[in-house]
Amino acid sequence: MLKQLKKHVCEANKELVRHGLVIFTWGNVSGFDREKGLMVIKPSGVPYDELTPDDMSIVSSDGEHIGGGKPSSDSPTHLALYKRFPQIGGIAHTHSTWATACAQAGIGIPCLGTTHADYFYGDIPITRDMTDEEINGQYEAETGKVILEAIQSDPMVVPAVLVRSHAPFAWGADCDRAVHNAVALEEVARMFVLSRMLTPDISAISPALLDRHFLRKHGMGAYYGQ
Amino acid sequence: MLKQLKKHVCEANKELVRHGLVIFTWGNVSGFDREKGLMVIKPSGVPYDELTPDDMSIVSSDGEHIGGGKPSSDSPTHLALYKRFPQIGGIAHTHSTWATACAQAGIGIPCLGTTHADYFYGDIPITRDMTDEEINGQYEAETGKVILEAIQSDPMVVPAVLVRSHAPFAWGADCDRAVHNAVALEEVARMFVLSRMLTPDISAISPALLDRHFLRKHGMGAYYGQ
Amino acid sequence: MLKQLKKHVCEANKELVRHGLVIFTWGNVSGFDREKGLMVIKPSGVPYDELTPDDMSIVSSDGEHIGGGKPSSDSPTHLALYKRFPQIGGIAHTHSTWATACAQAGIGIPCLGTTHADYFYGDIPITRDMTDEEINGQYEAETGKVILEAIQSDPMVVPAVLVRSHAPFAWGADCDRAVHNAVALEEVARMFVLSRMLTPDISAISPALLDRHFLRKHGMGAYYGQ
Amino acid sequence: MLKQLKKHVCEANKELVRHGLVIFTWGNVSGFDREKGLMVIKPSGVPYDELTPDDMSIVSSDGEHIGGGKPSSDSPTHLALYKRFPQIGGIAHTHSTWATACAQAGIGIPCLGTTHADYFYGDIPITRDMTDEEINGQYEAETGKVILEAIQSDPMVVPAVLVRSHAPFAWGADCDRAVHNAVALEEVARMFVLSRMLTPDISAISPALLDRHFLRKHGMGAYYGQ
Repeated sequence: MLKQLKKHVCEANKELVRHGLVIFTWGNVSGFDREKGLMVIKPSGVPYDELTPDDMSIVSSDGEHIGGGKPSSDSPTHLALYKRFPQIGGIAHTHSTWATACAQAGIGIPCLGTTHADYFYGDIPITRDMTDEEINGQYEAETGKVILEAIQSDPMVVPAVLVRSHAPFAWGADCDRAVHNAVALEEVARMFVLSRMLTPDISAISPALLDRHFLRKHGMGAYYGQ
Repeated sequence: MLKQLKKHVCEANKELVRHGLVIFTWGNVSGFDREKGLMVIKPSGVPYDELTPDDMSIVSSDGEHIGGGKPSSDSPTHLALYKRFPQIGGIAHTHSTWATACAQAGIGIPCLGTTHADYFYGDIPITRDMTDEEINGQYEAETGKVILEAIQSDPMVVPAVLVRSHAPFAWGADCDRAVHNAVALEEVARMFVLSRMLTPDISAISPALLDRHFLRKHGMGAYYGQ
Repeated sequence: MLKQLKKHVCEANKELVRHGLVIFTWGNVSGFDREKGLMVIKPSGVPYDELTPDDMSIVSSDGEHIGGGKPSSDSPTHLALYKRFPQIGGIAHTHSTWATACAQAGIGIPCLGTTHADYFYGDIPITRDMTDEEINGQYEAETGKVILEAIQSDPMVVPAVLVRSHAPFAWGADCDRAVHNAVALEEVARMFVLSRMLTPDISAISPALLDRHFLRKHGMGAYYGQ
Repeated sequence: MLKQLKKHVCEANKELVRHGLVIFTWGNVSGFDREKGLMVIKPSGVPYDELTPDDMSIVSSDGEHIGGGKPSSDSPTHLALYKRFPQIGGIAHTHSTWATACAQAGIGIPCLGTTHADYFYGDIPITRDMTDEEINGQYEAETGKVILEAIQSDPMVVPAVLVRSHAPFAWGADCDRAVHNAVALEEVARMFVLSRMLTPDISAISPALLDRHFLRKHGMGAYYGQ
């Protein structure tokens, strides 16, 4: 139901504000209807508190604007992820402070603890520098390409990436899960920055601990819940 | 009265949110009924704003699920503390940002000032690395064991510990006091990180000052109150 | 309409508080009526929650007090900008924490990422040290002069400056835009400080990326919106 | 009017909470009635949201408890200031995060910018280490003594001090002004820590700039207001 998805995506965009991940119009959430092959995404430049489900922009897999408001200029980046990974049903892009600081510093986020391991099965990757050609070309689509390049594992077990010199993208099975992962990413980024200030040469946790935490929550034998 | 304890523990879990120590389901508070030998703990995976006293999970000293929702997966860790220390009546586990950053950085918290000394009679210890065998075995119970190993003094005078690469646990005579100590720990951790940034080789306060502050508040001759 | 402008400027001053940029009376917003050649500015020393449009102070281009409350002591600094740059219609001065820390540290803000590039087309400049003569003379007017000295490009594409040992000024086509830029500046400053802690020798993004982000939002061919 | 002062001091204590300077009972505000020679201070251990004017504790200059609740254990420290400096009419003691971190790090706060200079006419001093004898003796009165030792200038132009390994005290002509200065101190401390992270060898602003800012606001020829 596209109507349901528009409502769902609208609400997920407002969640970004409630969680303190965005100000002004600095972020966007989308959802994908796999049956119809259509993406629903935040319209361009509309403040979050004015968003209604009917404002949501509808875009085809090919990037064609089908209905609703003018799609976010980041739409081609979202589409690149949806087209490559059919498991992804929602994407959240923010400029959340601490994750963006890592992106600006050119540093991916190693797994330093169980908070990270509960959500991300390994390091959060960071994309490579984009070439001038890529930047001057179809920039937003090229951003999608460097993201795909950076994803070295199953995107559903490390559902986030930092775009170098830019900001994070997080995703999930639906747009709620994408926002949830964006919130977790920001907190994990903050803990990483502080831990690294305390112990500059801190290294990642053991594979055993990573496995235990990620798999007790997400694996087939999951039993986790706090 | 178990009914009373369930209400009490439910409310204490919500306090974690009010004090900004947890988001989503990243923490849990328990209380222990010494007469009945039963633990009441947050049920697994239920959001804090939906928690009701009847949802609280009841677990026996042996870890048997007696009633209420599915117990938090951290239950065996809580039980290890209750079984070893009969003085403990409540435990709060969080992933609060600054204390967790210290845990990830592998650094216990030395007593740098009177804020710390008012609550903790000496350094906040940090557990050792767990072996792969411990992690792959009864992980949550083994976590309890390394906590017990790390506790070198009366647990009621240093009522908190950092689990390395994980996060803090705090406790007290009841679950309210456990939450109170978890809040104090987070603030003490924040002050520690900032102080250490300013003066990297800062050392602990004098034993005389530690004694004065801790004992004016907690000792037999306590007279403190701000 | 001066009446309209007074209402507008009054509201913009209150926005500073809502965005957490000022406490007490630590900031001021002004607007300029180009037709009449009059500036409307926050009155001196009045708390934000008591401000009404009628309290707004009216000052001529020459600094003469025309009506309303006693003008903010920073009025000559604002006027210096309005007189030199006819494009400026609003100015916001704050002591927002992170931008002020940069000003105190004597460091302008290089463009480290797209959050910055979306608002500021290059580095945020910092003024030089003022001489004792300047400080002991018409201090607020001299502050305006060192700001003008520091502005090396079109003020509408880098609409902010840090006054060394003091704090930021931001501006725009009207007072709403000035406040908006002041908010963006504070967030950009925070990301800069954190990025630099992580990677002390971090350098600015490529001219291509700067162009792409600034111009997709502000250029003649602007198409941006998140 | 003592009745009026009790209401005033009660309200000022609650202001500490509104400004985020204290949690639990980590702070206290007092006021002094110069005519009667009596101090009104927060009672010991009462949470801020339950405070009523009638709970306020009344203490004589000699430290005798005259009426109201049991006086804060920090009362002798407050009295030391009131007795030495008749200009002081109110004192605020907090454990606010950033100022306390400076106190723990053993670092007074140099004047790095105009935010500081608007409130404090020079560095915020830090007390020396207390001897074991002082700590084991009349500790709170001895704390007052090391504060008096650290005050090298007119206490009304630098109305705050950091007690080493402890936390800040701020004061003013009345208790409102004391709380106001405590809030300014915390913000100045935060800006100092961040500035020093950016530029570790940053030095104080010029005497000319310090004079200009402090005196335009507080001197006989004051004209300041933002």
